[in-house]
Amino acid sequence: MTAKLFVCTTCRAGESVVEGQPVPGRRLYTLLTSQSLPSGLEIIPVECLSACNNGCVIALSASGRWSYVYGRLTEQDAPDILAGAEAYAATPDGLVPWRQRPQIFRKQSLARLPPQEN
Amino acid sequence: MTAKLFVCTTCRAGESVVEGQPVPGRRLYTLLTSQSLPSGLEIIPVECLSACNNGCVIALSASGRWSYVYGRLTEQDAPDILAGAEAYAATPDGLVPWRQRPQIFRKQSLARLPPQEN
Repeated sequence: MTAKLFVCTTCRAGESVVEGQPVPGRRLYTLLTSQSLPSGLEIIPVECLSACNNGCVIALSASGRWSYVYGRLTEQDAPDILAGAEAYAATPDGLVPWRQRPQIFRKQSLARLPPQEN
Repeated sequence: MTAKLFVCTTCRAGESVVEGQPVPGRRLYTLLTSQSLPSGLEIIPVECLSACNNGCVIALSASGRWSYVYGRLTEQDAPDILAGAEAYAATPDGLVPWRQRPQIFRKQSLARLPPQEN
């Protein structure tokens, strides 16, 4: 089962919107999808993850696993986001040991959700 | 498919822990489960939804539907939580029209997550 890395592409992260210029969430998505992806991971753009005061925001989710939402992210966090997502994708339940999580995942959790029934 | 109302039973919501006394999240769970529940809704206690700075925290989730996480809740919000959960349980996709959501759901969203694949 592929893990999903959702990226909110409408996050403004406190910046003013400039017409014709991509917002921070869109820039983060573009940067993440320009990298080589870990196996078992898919990046999916989402219009609004309803965490607008804490953008940029991403979420990790997969069938049968805990889901996680992280916020206050920037393009500089892209390498750590992908490293953390790779660790998540390698778990059967979404629970990455604390010390193996990148600092942004340890410090910038917005919420987590139990696995859904199938 | 039953909708799940997850309640974080470890939320301290800024209160000091008093030994032998239930924390705010546990009190909220106890109060919610003492009410008559809307049909199609199940209340499930969870130890930590990783939104500790915004407790008390609940989440709504169901297979094939968007999931939502709400925070900064108190026991006084129990009637609105159940009304909002009932509206959520009645949707096929988790998307309750904005005006039909209780104010706590409009104002206190911490995050939402797209439906998981089954």
